[in-house]
Amino acid sequence: MKLKNLGVLLFLPFLGFAQKNELVQYVSPIIGTAKMGHTFPGATVPFGAVQLSPDTDTIPYAVNGKYNGEVYQYCAGYQYKNPTIVGFSHTHFSGTGHSDLGDISVMPTVGKVQLNPGTADQPDQGYRSRFDHAKETAEANYYKVFLDDPRVLAEMTTTNRVGFHRYTFPKTDDAHIIVDLKSGIYNYDDKNVWTVVRVVNDSLITGYMQSNGWARTRTVYFAMRFSKPFKNYGAKYDGKEQAYKGFWRKFDQTDNFPDLAGKQLKMHFDFSVADTEQVQMKVALSPVSMRNALQNMEEEVPHWDFEKVKKAGQQLWEAELQKIKVDMLEKDDYVNFYTAMYHAALMPTVYMDVNGEYKGLDQEIHKAEGFVNYTSFSLWDTFRAFHPYMNLINPQRNADMVASMMAHYDQSTLKMLPIWSHYANDNWCMSGYHAVSVIADAIIKGVYKGDGKAALAACVQTANTRRYEGIGPYIDLGYVPDELSGTSVSNTLEYAYDDWCIAQLAKHLGEQDTYQTFSKRAENWKNLFDDRIGFMRPKDSKGNFRAKFDVLETHGQGFIEGNTWNYSLYVPHDPEGLTQLMGGKKRLAVYLDSLFTMHLPDKFFANTEDITREGIIGNYVHGNEPAHHVVYLHNLAGIAWKGQERIRMILKNQYHTGHDGLGGNDDCGQMSAWYLFSTLGFYPVSPGGDEYWLGSPAVKQATLTLADGKVLEVKAVNQSTKNVYVKEVLFNGKRLAEYKIKHADIASGGNLTFVMSSKPNKKLQ
Amino acid sequence: MKLKNLGVLLFLPFLGFAQKNELVQYVSPIIGTAKMGHTFPGATVPFGAVQLSPDTDTIPYAVNGKYNGEVYQYCAGYQYKNPTIVGFSHTHFSGTGHSDLGDISVMPTVGKVQLNPGTADQPDQGYRSRFDHAKETAEANYYKVFLDDPRVLAEMTTTNRVGFHRYTFPKTDDAHIIVDLKSGIYNYDDKNVWTVVRVVNDSLITGYMQSNGWARTRTVYFAMRFSKPFKNYGAKYDGKEQAYKGFWRKFDQTDNFPDLAGKQLKMHFDFSVADTEQVQMKVALSPVSMRNALQNMEEEVPHWDFEKVKKAGQQLWEAELQKIKVDMLEKDDYVNFYTAMYHAALMPTVYMDVNGEYKGLDQEIHKAEGFVNYTSFSLWDTFRAFHPYMNLINPQRNADMVASMMAHYDQSTLKMLPIWSHYANDNWCMSGYHAVSVIADAIIKGVYKGDGKAALAACVQTANTRRYEGIGPYIDLGYVPDELSGTSVSNTLEYAYDDWCIAQLAKHLGEQDTYQTFSKRAENWKNLFDDRIGFMRPKDSKGNFRAKFDVLETHGQGFIEGNTWNYSLYVPHDPEGLTQLMGGKKRLAVYLDSLFTMHLPDKFFANTEDITREGIIGNYVHGNEPAHHVVYLHNLAGIAWKGQERIRMILKNQYHTGHDGLGGNDDCGQMSAWYLFSTLGFYPVSPGGDEYWLGSPAVKQATLTLADGKVLEVKAVNQSTKNVYVKEVLFNGKRLAEYKIKHADIASGGNLTFVMSSKPNKKLQ
Repeated sequence: MKLKNLGVLLFLPFLGFAQKNELVQYVSPIIGTAKMGHTFPGATVPFGAVQLSPDTDTIPYAVNGKYNGEVYQYCAGYQYKNPTIVGFSHTHFSGTGHSDLGDISVMPTVGKVQLNPGTADQPDQGYRSRFDHAKETAEANYYKVFLDDPRVLAEMTTTNRVGFHRYTFPKTDDAHIIVDLKSGIYNYDDKNVWTVVRVVNDSLITGYMQSNGWARTRTVYFAMRFSKPFKNYGAKYDGKEQAYKGFWRKFDQTDNFPDLAGKQLKMHFDFSVADTEQVQMKVALSPVSMRNALQNMEEEVPHWDFEKVKKAGQQLWEAELQKIKVDMLEKDDYVNFYTAMYHAALMPTVYMDVNGEYKGLDQEIHKAEGFVNYTSFSLWDTFRAFHPYMNLINPQRNADMVASMMAHYDQSTLKMLPIWSHYANDNWCMSGYHAVSVIADAIIKGVYKGDGKAALAACVQTANTRRYEGIGPYIDLGYVPDELSGTSVSNTLEYAYDDWCIAQLAKHLGEQDTYQTFSKRAENWKNLFDDRIGFMRPKDSKGNFRAKFDVLETHGQGFIEGNTWNYSLYVPHDPEGLTQLMGGKKRLAVYLDSLFTMHLPDKFFANTEDITREGIIGNYVHGNEPAHHVVYLHNLAGIAWKGQERIRMILKNQYHTGHDGLGGNDDCGQMSAWYLFSTLGFYPVSPGGDEYWLGSPAVKQATLTLADGKVLEVKAVNQSTKNVYVKEVLFNGKRLAEYKIKHADIASGGNLTFVMSSKPNKKLQ
Repeated sequence: MKLKNLGVLLFLPFLGFAQKNELVQYVSPIIGTAKMGHTFPGATVPFGAVQLSPDTDTIPYAVNGKYNGEVYQYCAGYQYKNPTIVGFSHTHFSGTGHSDLGDISVMPTVGKVQLNPGTADQPDQGYRSRFDHAKETAEANYYKVFLDDPRVLAEMTTTNRVGFHRYTFPKTDDAHIIVDLKSGIYNYDDKNVWTVVRVVNDSLITGYMQSNGWARTRTVYFAMRFSKPFKNYGAKYDGKEQAYKGFWRKFDQTDNFPDLAGKQLKMHFDFSVADTEQVQMKVALSPVSMRNALQNMEEEVPHWDFEKVKKAGQQLWEAELQKIKVDMLEKDDYVNFYTAMYHAALMPTVYMDVNGEYKGLDQEIHKAEGFVNYTSFSLWDTFRAFHPYMNLINPQRNADMVASMMAHYDQSTLKMLPIWSHYANDNWCMSGYHAVSVIADAIIKGVYKGDGKAALAACVQTANTRRYEGIGPYIDLGYVPDELSGTSVSNTLEYAYDDWCIAQLAKHLGEQDTYQTFSKRAENWKNLFDDRIGFMRPKDSKGNFRAKFDVLETHGQGFIEGNTWNYSLYVPHDPEGLTQLMGGKKRLAVYLDSLFTMHLPDKFFANTEDITREGIIGNYVHGNEPAHHVVYLHNLAGIAWKGQERIRMILKNQYHTGHDGLGGNDDCGQMSAWYLFSTLGFYPVSPGGDEYWLGSPAVKQATLTLADGKVLEVKAVNQSTKNVYVKEVLFNGKRLAEYKIKHADIASGGNLTFVMSSKPNKKLQ
C-alpha cells in the first residue's frame, strides 16, 4: 500500500455503512508491518482466536538444526518489503521477536497444481504470487489483496474462531485452493509432528496439526468449509510417511482419498469457475477437537455472508475503540492512537471453544468455568503497561487473563505461573516471573475478584521454583551469580521487582509473613549495584563484580535486550532508593541527560535486539522494554519538564503512520500501551503499586469509559505541539500536590486537567 | 518353563484358595509362545484392555525403511527360545502374524542405570535380564519370573485397564525401574511420533505416547503409580528433541525434571530397597486422556493388594471358563480345551474408559452409550469360528463387538466397516470385508439387537466401496482381475461369500432388492473356477486365465495365506454349487483325499506364512484360516467318516500342551475357536447361515451355558481315542436325519448326543 494513499484507502471502504465519526476508520493494521514492528496486516476481532493474515514468507527457522537469521523478519508472517504472498494463514502473534504459528496456510492458484511455495525471488516455481501494495487494503477485520499471478482477488475477515476467505477468480477450469498444512512461521524440518485430515464430503474438511516449535507440544484442530463443492482434490506428503504406507496399501491414495494422516501434508482442492466467480471458505479453529472446531464454525458463522461477518467484527472493534474518545492535534495522531488501541487489543487471544472447552498446560481438556480462557502471554513485555492498560480499559478481560494464568498454574507440572505461554505450553522466553506483577496489579486494583490467597500462593510458589533460571542461588545469595547466566543482572533486577509485587499482594491480603519475606527479597537489586562505577554490574557467586565489563554492551554481560545504562534504572518499585544509591537526584538527572543524549557507537545498534536504529534515542532504547518507565524518572530527578519534553519526543518519533511506523517489535501490545498511557498523560511506573506517574499528554482531550460506567475526562488546556510542558495538573478541579495520581482516583472517574505551556515548570515534581 | 513340570507348576499356585475342580487351573498361557503361535504368556482378564506380559525382544521392524525378517517371531513380544526378558509391557495382540503395541515397557534393574535394552546375545549391555523357564510361572491373570541378572522376582497381574507389577528386590541402594516409552513391538526409527510425561509427584506419573505403526495414528494415555516414592529419576531422549530445547533451556533437565515431552523417551526411577523389599506399580491405560487413565486406576484398583487383584481376575476367568464344562478323555485335553477357551477370550479387547469414553476412528472422543466398545478386530481370521463361538458362549460381548464395529463405521471417513482395526485405526490387513459376516451372523442369530437396517446399510456401503482393493472391478466384471492384485482370487472368493452374508441379512430384514443384488454377487466365485484344471485361478480383465500358474504356489498368484488347493474350496456359502462345478461328490472326495495326503515339496513349507511345518497336513494348511471349514466338506463328499477321522487327527496333532503347542498363529482366537467347536462336535461352515455342520466330538461330555440360562449338553457315547467315527446323532433324543444342526436348536438348549464307534458309518451325510 502506498503511504500517500493511506488516508484514501482507509476511509473509502467505510462510506457505505459507517458514519464519518466512527473510530474504526483510523485503524491501520499495516502500521508496523515493515522492518521490526512485526505486526500483521490481516483480519481479526479484538483478542480473537483467529488472526487471518497474509504471509509474505514462511522460510525455515532452521534446517538440520542450523538457525537461519533471515527468518526473524517474518515473526508475524508478513514483511512489507517482500513482493510476494505465500499464503493466508490463521494464527499470528503481533509484534513478537521470536515466533511460531502461521497455521493452516491457504492460497488460491490458477493453472498447474503446485504444492511447493516457491521463493520470493522465483515465485513462479511455487504456488505463491506477486502482489502490489497499491492493490492491497488492510482494515480492522478486513484484508484485501489482488494476487497478480493467478489474477485472484483475495479478501478475508473473521469472527473470534473462524477465518472467512473470499476468492474472486478469473474464468478457468483450473482453479485451485492450496491448503498447506506443513507451512508455518518459524518452521523447520521436524516441526510438524503429525497431521490428520478427514475430507468429510465435497465441501467440508476437518483435521488437526501437531507441532513441536516454540510451543513444544501444540495441536491446532480445524474445520474447513467451502462455499462451492470441489470437483477434485489431492495431497502430498513431504515427509516420508504416507497416508497408509507399506504393506497394506489397499487404496489408490493419489487423488480424492479422504482419509489422510502423516507429516508435512499439503493439499489442493480444484474448481471450475466462471469469470469473477467467488469461492468462499470458512476455517474454524479449536484447541480441543475437530468436532469443537465445527461447532465453533456452526455457531459463529452459520451462513455465507462475508459482508455480515466483516461488519460484525468491525462493530466489535468500534465498541473497543469507543472506550477512549480522543481529540488530537493532527490527523495522523488519530491513526496512531486508534491503531495503538488496535494493537493493544490483539493479544492475548481467546483460547477456548464456544462450548467453553480448551486444552490446558497439562494437555488435558478443561472447561473454563466462569471465565474466558486466554493464551499467548508475553509477560516480560506486557506486565509493564499493557496489563495495567487492560485493568483500566478492559478490566473484565484482564480479570479473565489472570484467571487463565491461574488455570495455567493449576495445570503446571512444574508448579509455575506462565512465563511466556502460548497454546497450552510455556516457551520460557525472557527473564523474570512477571505473571506475579500482573496478578498483584489486578488484585490490588480490584479487577481480579478470584481467590486472592490462592493467587498469592501461586506467586510465592513460582518465585520459589529454585530450579528455574537461577532462582535457587538468587534466594541463597540475594542475586543470580554471573557465572550461572549471561543475563544475571536482568534476572536479579526483575526478580527483585517481582518480589516487591508479591509483597504488595501479600500486604493487600494481610499476609504479613509473606509481605516481610518478599519485601526483603525486593531489595536484592542493591546487591548488584556497583557504586564504584554507578551501574548495575554482574557479580559472581564469590561476591566479585565482573572484571571485563562494557557499560554499552547488551550481550552476554548480565543483560538481555538492554545494556546496563538502560537496566541500571530498572528498580521501578524503589526509584527513590536507587536514586539515593546513585548519589541523589542531581546524579540521576545527569544520568538521564546522558542516557538520552549520548552518542552510541555504531556497533551497538547492530547489537540491539528487536528494534530499528530509529528505536534508539541517544542510548535510551525505546524499542525494547526495560527502559519503558525511564523517561518518567525525570520527575524524581527534579527535571520533570525534561521528561515531558522527551515523552512528547518519543511519541512523535517512535510512532508514526507508516508501514514502518513502529521503531521496534510491538511486543504483543506493550509498545502500543506505552503510547496510549503516555498520550493520555500518565504511566504505571511500577505495576503492582497503586499510582501512575504523570507525564505530558498528547491529546487535547480524551474521554475514557472505565469499569461500572465510570468516565475519566483528560483535558490538556493550551495543548499544542509546542506546549509540551505541564504547568499544573488538577483532578476534579483540585490541583495535585505531587506529580502522581492514584489508580483509585482515576478508576473512580473524574476530570484530569493538565494545563500546558511552552515553558517548563521546573518546580513540578 | 520345562514342559514336564507344566502340571506341577500350573496346579500348585492354586492350592491356597482354589478348589481342586476349578477350571482356571487348566489354563496354560505358555502354550503357543514358541515358534509361530504368537501368543503371549502374561497377565490379562477376559477381553481386558491391558495385557501385561514379558517381551523377550523388541527388535526393530525396520531400520531406515528396510524390513527386518527377524521381527516376525516377536509379534506377541515373547518368544520362548529367547533367553532374556527385555521388559514387561502393557499391550499385546494374541496370535497375530503382523504386529504393533508393546506399550510402556517396564523393567526392574539393579546397579548402574542403563537405558538401552541391549541384545539377547549381550544382555549385560542393556537393561534386559537373563531368565530361566524353570523359574517362570504363567497362569491366567498371573505371571511370575525370576530375573537372573538383577536377582529380582517379577510378578504381574491385571484388572481390565490396569497392569499391576510387583518386584521383589535384593538389598541395594541402586534399584531402578526402567520405563521405556520408546520401546514397542514392530518398532522402528520413526514409529514414536511424540511422547509426553508428567511426573506429578514422587510416586505418580502420567503421560501419553503417540505412534505411527501398524495403526497409523495411535495414542496410548497412561497413569503410573509406585507403591514407594522414588528417590530420584531421570530421562533420556534417543531422538534429537529435548524436553525444552535450544534457546530457552532455562532448566537443568538432566535429573528430576518433571515436565517431559519429545521423541523416543526412556526414563528411570531410582530406589533404595531392603532385602526382599517389594516395590509395586500400577499402570492404567486410557484411549482418551491421562485423566481418564488415572480415573481407571482409582476405580479399578484403589489399593495395593496384589493378591486381591490376581484373585479377582482369576475369578473372572473361572466364570468365563465355567460356561463350558467338559469331560475329556485325557488330562492334557483339559489343558488344551481351557487354554483354547482362554485364547478365545483375549481379543478383541475393551477399548473404553470406566467412564465410557473412547477415541473413535475419527480421532474424536466418544462416549459409548449402551454398549462396551471393543477394538482389535482381526476379522479375516475371526469371522470364521471365533465370532460364531462368541454368539453362542458370549452373546452380549459379541453384540457389543458388533456395536463397536457400527460405531467404527459411523466414524469412518471412508464409510467402511472395519477390515482389521485396532486402537481407533484400521490397518487394512488381509482381504475381504468380513465384518459383514460377523454382523449378519449376529443379527440372524438374534444376538445383536441394534438397528438392523442401519447395519445392513453399513454392510452394503462397505461392499460398494469401489476404491477399496478391487471392489470396483469386482462389481463391474464379477471378479477382481489378476493384473490389479496379487490376491485377486482370494479377494473374489471372499467378497462372494461376504456378499452372500449381506444377502442373508437383507433377506432376514425383508430387504428384497438388496437380497437379490447380493445373492447375485454371491455367485461371483464361479467366475474364477477354471474347469479345465478344476481349480480357482486368476483371470485378467479380458477374461483370460493366468497362463503361468502353479497350483501349489501361495504367493503372488492370486492368493494370500493359501494356495489354490486350499482356496478352491472357499465357497462356504455354496459348497453344493462348488461340488457340482467340480464334477460331483466323488470328484470332491478325491480332491479332499489328495489335499490331506499329498506330498508337498519342501519349498512350499518355507513359503507358507504364519505356520510351522507341523501346521500342514498333506497340503491342507490348518495353521492358516482359508481352509478351516474344509475338513467338514467330507460330509458333502459322502465321506463324512473320513472327515471325522481327520477332525480328530487335527485336534490331536495341531493342538498340544507344549509351549510350541500351536501349529500356527492363534490369530486372535480363531485357531482356538476352531478347536473348541470341533472338540464339541459341530462347526459353523458358513457364518451368516443358521446351521452347523457336524464332525466328531472329542469330549466325552460337555455342558454349555448359553444365553438366557439355556443349557446344551453334548454327549459322546462310547467315546474313546479310537472311536472317532460317529454312528448316529440324536438331538433331544431324536435322531438327526441330516448331519447338520440348526443354530436355533443349539441355542434353545437340549441334548446333543453322538454315538461313537470304532467303525465308520459310511451312510452318514
